Amino acid sequence: MKTMEDLFLHLLKDIYYAEKQILRALPKMAKKAETPELKQAFAHHRDETEGQIQRLESVFEHMEKPARAVKCEAIMGLIEESKEIMEEGETPEVIDAGLLAGAQAVEHYEIARYGTMVAMAEQLGMKDAMQLLQQNLNEEKKADELLTRIAKSTVNRKAA
Amino acid sequence: MKTMEDLFLHLLKDIYYAEKQILRALPKMAKKAETPELKQAFAHHRDETEGQIQRLESVFEHMEKPARAVKCEAIMGLIEESKEIMEEGETPEVIDAGLLAGAQAVEHYEIARYGTMVAMAEQLGMKDAMQLLQQNLNEEKKADELLTRIAKSTVNRKAA
Repeated sequence: MKTMEDLFLHLLKDIYYAEKQILRALPKMAKKAETPELKQAFAHHRDETEGQIQRLESVFEHMEKPARAVKCEAIMGLIEESKEIMEEGETPEVIDAGLLAGAQAVEHYEIARYGTMVAMAEQLGMKDAMQLLQQNLNEEKKADELLTRIAKSTVNRKAA
Repeated sequence: MKTMEDLFLHLLKDIYYAEKQILRALPKMAKKAETPELKQAFAHHRDETEGQIQRLESVFEHMEKPARAVKCEAIMGLIEESKEIMEEGETPEVIDAGLLAGAQAVEHYEIARYGTMVAMAEQLGMKDAMQLLQQNLNEEKKADELLTRIAKSTVNRKAA
């Protein structure tokens, strides 16, 4: 990687991989969740993730590069950790609180990455890419805020 | 894990492991960074991390539990990914931009975790723990904001 564009493309392939993994994980998390609001939030975010993947594919198109994923070690670790918590939780309340903790860690990973990529796209003068990534960033921030609200209103209270 | 307190203790051991890994990674990142502001930010955050680890040890004490770390898959993935980017970057500008991207992903992981743990400590009525974790959360948020300012003002501009 010699140029900023090389790094940007690397991060794009990386988040493309991550989003695909998240798309696969969310239905399992929705199935496992006990609290209806949490179940619904995961199902809704699964559909949102499909749209985010399409936006990433548009960014590849704008760059005239094939849409390719590279293995993202960070998301693998985050998902692995969430799985562990899910498997070790013995009551629905603890499982839901663990699912929430895992999901919010994933959201923050995406917020960090999209934040970095929006700034890079701006510097590189890639306006279309910037707007597409900004939409993904906004959705992730909203998803995180929703999870915080659910945590505060239901899951934590039940588990305590 | 049957109770919310079990889950809280698990997350505490997990972030304790993560902070120790970060303490080891930051001097390497400071050494690798080219931009003076970035170098300084990593060195400063290394010192801050020492204090954060002490606060986590105080939380263990308040809970009357031994301070023990459990392997945190998420931080391993995040650090592994940063290493890859560092190794693949061929110019100082790209390396710095990659270091920044990696560091911000780590900051956001910690922001997510401390956010979750502050909320849990509040629910569990653990006031001392809540305050200690809130201090760590505030420092992580400030560290992230500083990295964003550095990214916008220097590194991205140089690399573009």
